[in-house]
Amino acid sequence: MTEYLSELAQGLKPYVPGEQPSDRQYIKLNTNENPYGPSHQVKLAIEEEIGSLRLYPDPDCVALRDRVAAYYGVSRENVFVGNGSDEVLAFAFPAFFTSGTVLFPNITYSFYPVYSDLFKTKYMEIPLKEDFSIDPADYCGFGTAGEMPDDQADGMHEGRIRGILIPNPNAPTGKCLAPEAVEQIVKANRDKVVLIDEAYIDFGGVSAVGLTERYENLLVVMTLSKSRALAGLRVGFAIGGKKLIDGLNAVKNSFNSYTVDRLALAGAAAAIEDGRYFMQTRDMIIATRERVAAALCDIGFKVVPSQANFVFISHPTVRAQAIFEELRGMGILVRYFNKPLIDNYLRVTIGTDEEMDRFLSAVREIAALR
Amino acid sequence: MTEYLSELAQGLKPYVPGEQPSDRQYIKLNTNENPYGPSHQVKLAIEEEIGSLRLYPDPDCVALRDRVAAYYGVSRENVFVGNGSDEVLAFAFPAFFTSGTVLFPNITYSFYPVYSDLFKTKYMEIPLKEDFSIDPADYCGFGTAGEMPDDQADGMHEGRIRGILIPNPNAPTGKCLAPEAVEQIVKANRDKVVLIDEAYIDFGGVSAVGLTERYENLLVVMTLSKSRALAGLRVGFAIGGKKLIDGLNAVKNSFNSYTVDRLALAGAAAAIEDGRYFMQTRDMIIATRERVAAALCDIGFKVVPSQANFVFISHPTVRAQAIFEELRGMGILVRYFNKPLIDNYLRVTIGTDEEMDRFLSAVREIAALR
Repeated sequence: MTEYLSELAQGLKPYVPGEQPSDRQYIKLNTNENPYGPSHQVKLAIEEEIGSLRLYPDPDCVALRDRVAAYYGVSRENVFVGNGSDEVLAFAFPAFFTSGTVLFPNITYSFYPVYSDLFKTKYMEIPLKEDFSIDPADYCGFGTAGEMPDDQADGMHEGRIRGILIPNPNAPTGKCLAPEAVEQIVKANRDKVVLIDEAYIDFGGVSAVGLTERYENLLVVMTLSKSRALAGLRVGFAIGGKKLIDGLNAVKNSFNSYTVDRLALAGAAAAIEDGRYFMQTRDMIIATRERVAAALCDIGFKVVPSQANFVFISHPTVRAQAIFEELRGMGILVRYFNKPLIDNYLRVTIGTDEEMDRFLSAVREIAALR
Repeated sequence: MTEYLSELAQGLKPYVPGEQPSDRQYIKLNTNENPYGPSHQVKLAIEEEIGSLRLYPDPDCVALRDRVAAYYGVSRENVFVGNGSDEVLAFAFPAFFTSGTVLFPNITYSFYPVYSDLFKTKYMEIPLKEDFSIDPADYCGFGTAGEMPDDQADGMHEGRIRGILIPNPNAPTGKCLAPEAVEQIVKANRDKVVLIDEAYIDFGGVSAVGLTERYENLLVVMTLSKSRALAGLRVGFAIGGKKLIDGLNAVKNSFNSYTVDRLALAGAAAAIEDGRYFMQTRDMIIATRERVAAALCDIGFKVVPSQANFVFISHPTVRAQAIFEELRGMGILVRYFNKPLIDNYLRVTIGTDEEMDRFLSAVREIAALR
C-alpha cells in the first residue's frame, strides 16, 4: 500500500474535544461553554460587519489588539490575536519550544502533549501535589542554563528546557495559583519562556498580565470562549513582551496571513468593550458555582476548590464513569477523562441555575441508588 | 541576550500579503478580492447563527462538508474544511510532505516556500516555460520510487519526492492547465500526493475534482475567498480520497479542534447554496477581464492569457515598479512582486467595470507620458 501520509502524520494522536451530539436536546455541561451568551453589542457589531465580507480581514488585527491593549493597560505591540487560544498555544510551540523541552503539569489541558507531538517538542510532565495543586518550587531550580538532568537529556541542545506551560486556573481541576507563586516561577526562569494559559482566569483568579511589563519571558494567553461567551466565534489572544509577540507573528505569518475573520474581529472587540455585561454574567456564574459546590458536598461529593467555570468532582462510592453514563442517559452531558489519576473524577461546567438544579437532582438520584 | 525564539522561528521569512492601507480610499486591485460581494443569502444565514455563538462550532464541520460534497458530487468523507485555503495548504505540509521533498513551479503562489520552511520540508522549484506555462512533462518521469536525482538528494529518506503542488490556474500568471495535463501529472505520480490548488478555478478553468474518484493521490484545494466573494470570512476546503482527508484531519485536530467558526460555517454553506448568484457574478468578472485584457493590449501591454480573476501584465517601455508606484499615487492599488523573472510584471485584480475603466484611464495616462 502506498503511504501518502508523512511519518509525522501517521504518528499523531489528535486531541478529542468534548462531544457535541445532536441526537437529542442535552443540558451541555461538558465543554465549559458560558450559559449566558455574549453581550448584545456583539450581535450589533457583527451585523454591521457583514457588508464587508468581500474584503480580506486586517492580517494584523490592529483594531482588536488596540481594544485588548486598552483593556489590560498594555501596548498594541504586546498583544497577539489568534483563532481561539488553541491556535495561539499551537503557534507558541514552534515559536519558542521546538527542538527543546517544555514542562507542564501531569494533570492539565490534554492538548499540550498533542501540540508537542505535532511540533516535535519534547515535554516533561511535572506531577501535581496530592490535592491537585501546583507546587511552584517544582518549576524552579533548573538553573540558569536550563539544562535537563543528565539522565533525561539526550544531548545539550535537544535536552534544553526551553519553556514552562501552566494553565491558571488549571484544567480540569479548577485550582488556581496565587499571583506570588506565578511570579516565583517566572522570576526563577528568566532564560525560558513561561506561558500562563489563563483561559479561565476571569472566574476568580488574578491575572499575570500585570507581570508582563517586568518579565520579558512571560506570555499570558487568554480566550473569549469562556468568560466572554464566544466559543462559537474562535478568538483568543496573548499578552507579553514584544520579543515573544514577534515570535508568534513570525509563525502565524508563515502559516496563514488571516487566521481571524472580519466577523470575529468585530464581535470580539464589542465583547471586550461591554465590561458591564461581562462582570454581571461572570458574577452570576461564580455565585452558581459556589452554590453548586456546596450542594455537591452535601450530597457527599469531594469537590476540588474551583476558580473556574466548572467544578471537578468525585464521589466516594459511585464511580465517575458510571455517573457520567447515567447522566448522559438522563440528557445531561458532563466531561469524563479516562486517564490515570483522574479517572474517578468528572468535570462539570457551571450552567444556568436552572440547569444546575436539574444536574443536582440527577446526581442526588444517582448517589441515593447506591 | 537571551534568545526566547526557537531556531526555527528565528529563521522564518513570513509571507507578506497584499497591503490593506487605510490612509485613504483606494481602488483595491491588489489582493484578488471579488468586487461584487457575497450572495444576500450569506447575510441571512450569518444573522440567524449569531444567537448560537456561546456554543463551540461543530469541530467536524459536517453540515458544510455535506453542502460541498453535494455541490461537487462527492461524499462527506472526501471533503475537508479549513480556515481559508491557506490553512488547508498549511496542514497539507505536515500531513504529506514533511521529511521529504515537494515540487512546485518557480513562479507561483509565494506562500509555498514559506510553508515549506515552517514545516521543514524541502522543495524543488520547477521552472515555467518562457511563456509562463507549466509543462506537465516536467512533473513526470521521476519514477515510481519518487527518488531525487542523486546530485540533489542527500539520503534516501530526506530526498524522496513526496508530493507535487500546482496551482491551477497558476498565480500570479493566471495561466491554466488543461484537464488532460493535470491527469497526466496525477497519473504519472501515483505514489506521491499531487495537490492542485484551485483557488481561481471558477474563473475559466476545468476543475480536477472529477479525477479524485479515480486517483487516490489527488487532492484539490479550493477557497470561498475569490469566486464566492468571502475573503473576509476565511473558508477553504479540500476534496480528495479518504486517506488524504484523514491526513488533513489528523494534523488539524492536533492543532486546533475548531478552526472554522459558527458564522463562517453558516455563511459558507449559504454561499455554496446560491449557485445562481455565483454564476451571475462570475460571468460578470470574466466578461470584464476579457474587455480589460483587450484594452490593455491596445495600450501596448503584454497580457498573459488569464483564466483567473486577475491579469498579469507587462509594458514594453515603462517598468512595472514605476507603474505600480504611479498608480498608488493615483489611489489605485495593484500587486507588484519584486522577484526574479516577474519583476517587470503587475498583477491586476478584476474589479467592477467602473473601477477597471478608472484603472485603464490611469495606465493609459502613465504609458502616454513615456
